[in-house]
Amino acid sequence: MNRKVIFAGLALALGAGYALTAFSQAKPEVLVKQRQAVMTLQGKYIGPLVGMLKGAPYDANVVARNAAYLDALSQMPWDGFVESTKGEKNTRALPVIYSDPGKFKQAQDQLRTAVGSLVAASKAGNEGTVKAAIGDIGKACGNCHDNFREK
Amino acid sequence: MNRKVIFAGLALALGAGYALTAFSQAKPEVLVKQRQAVMTLQGKYIGPLVGMLKGAPYDANVVARNAAYLDALSQMPWDGFVESTKGEKNTRALPVIYSDPGKFKQAQDQLRTAVGSLVAASKAGNEGTVKAAIGDIGKACGNCHDNFREK
Repeated sequence: MNRKVIFAGLALALGAGYALTAFSQAKPEVLVKQRQAVMTLQGKYIGPLVGMLKGAPYDANVVARNAAYLDALSQMPWDGFVESTKGEKNTRALPVIYSDPGKFKQAQDQLRTAVGSLVAASKAGNEGTVKAAIGDIGKACGNCHDNFREK
Repeated sequence: MNRKVIFAGLALALGAGYALTAFSQAKPEVLVKQRQAVMTLQGKYIGPLVGMLKGAPYDANVVARNAAYLDALSQMPWDGFVESTKGEKNTRALPVIYSDPGKFKQAQDQLRTAVGSLVAASKAGNEGTVKAAIGDIGKACGNCHDNFREK
C-alpha cells in the first residue's frame, strides 16, 4: 500500500469531522465528543474497582490493568475544555470551567493525584492502600462533577 | 465524606446506564458506546502523528505522549465486541467479527504490533523508524475498518 492510500484510508478512519490537529485546532463539537469519550472510558475502568470496594472479589490483575489505563485516561480530557466549546449543546460542562480555570485545574490535579496513588498502591500490592486510593478517585470524580457539571 | 456518599456520587458519576462490571456484564448499548469512545480517542491521538507524516513539524514530545496513550487505548476496545451487541443499531461493526473471531484477533494484533513499534521507536528517538511505525498503524486502522466495518 502506498502512502497516499494509507492517508486516504486514515482520513476516512478518523471520520469526516476530525481535523488533523497537527494542522488545525479540532472543531468544538469534536473536542466535546473526545472529552466525553474519556469520561465514558474512565467510567468503564473505575466501575469494576468500585465494585471491589462494594464486595466484589478483589482481583489484583484487574486493579493493575485498570490503574494503568486510568493513568493514561485521566490525562486526556483537559485539553478539550477550551472556550470555543462553550456554545455547544451536547455538554453539561459549566461556564465556571472557563471563568475559574485555577479551580478547575485543582480538580484535575485531585484526580491525577488519586490515580497516581492507585498506580503506586497497585504496584506495591497492598489491598488496603489500593482501596483507599479507589475511594480517593471516587471523591475526585464527585468533586469535579459537583462543581463543574450541570446537575 | 463517608463511603456511602462516595458510592452514591460515583454511581451518579458513572451515569445511570453504567453497570458496575465487577458485578454484571455491561449492557450491549454501553459496550458499543465504550468501544466507540476508544475509536474516537485513537483518532485524537493518531491524527497529529499522521499530520507529521504529511509535513507538520516533527515533535518528539508529542510522539512519545501519543504513543503511550495509543498503547493503552489500543488494548481497550476489544472486550466490547461481544455477541450481545450484534443487534445494536448505532454501530457499523460487521457480523464477521463474531463469525470469524480468529481473523478479527489478527487485525487487533496487527494494530498492537504497530503501536508497540511506535512506542519502541519513540523511546529510541529515531524519526525515520517513528514515521514507519505511524504508517504501519495507518495500515492497521485501514485493514480493520475495511474488513470489519460497514462502508
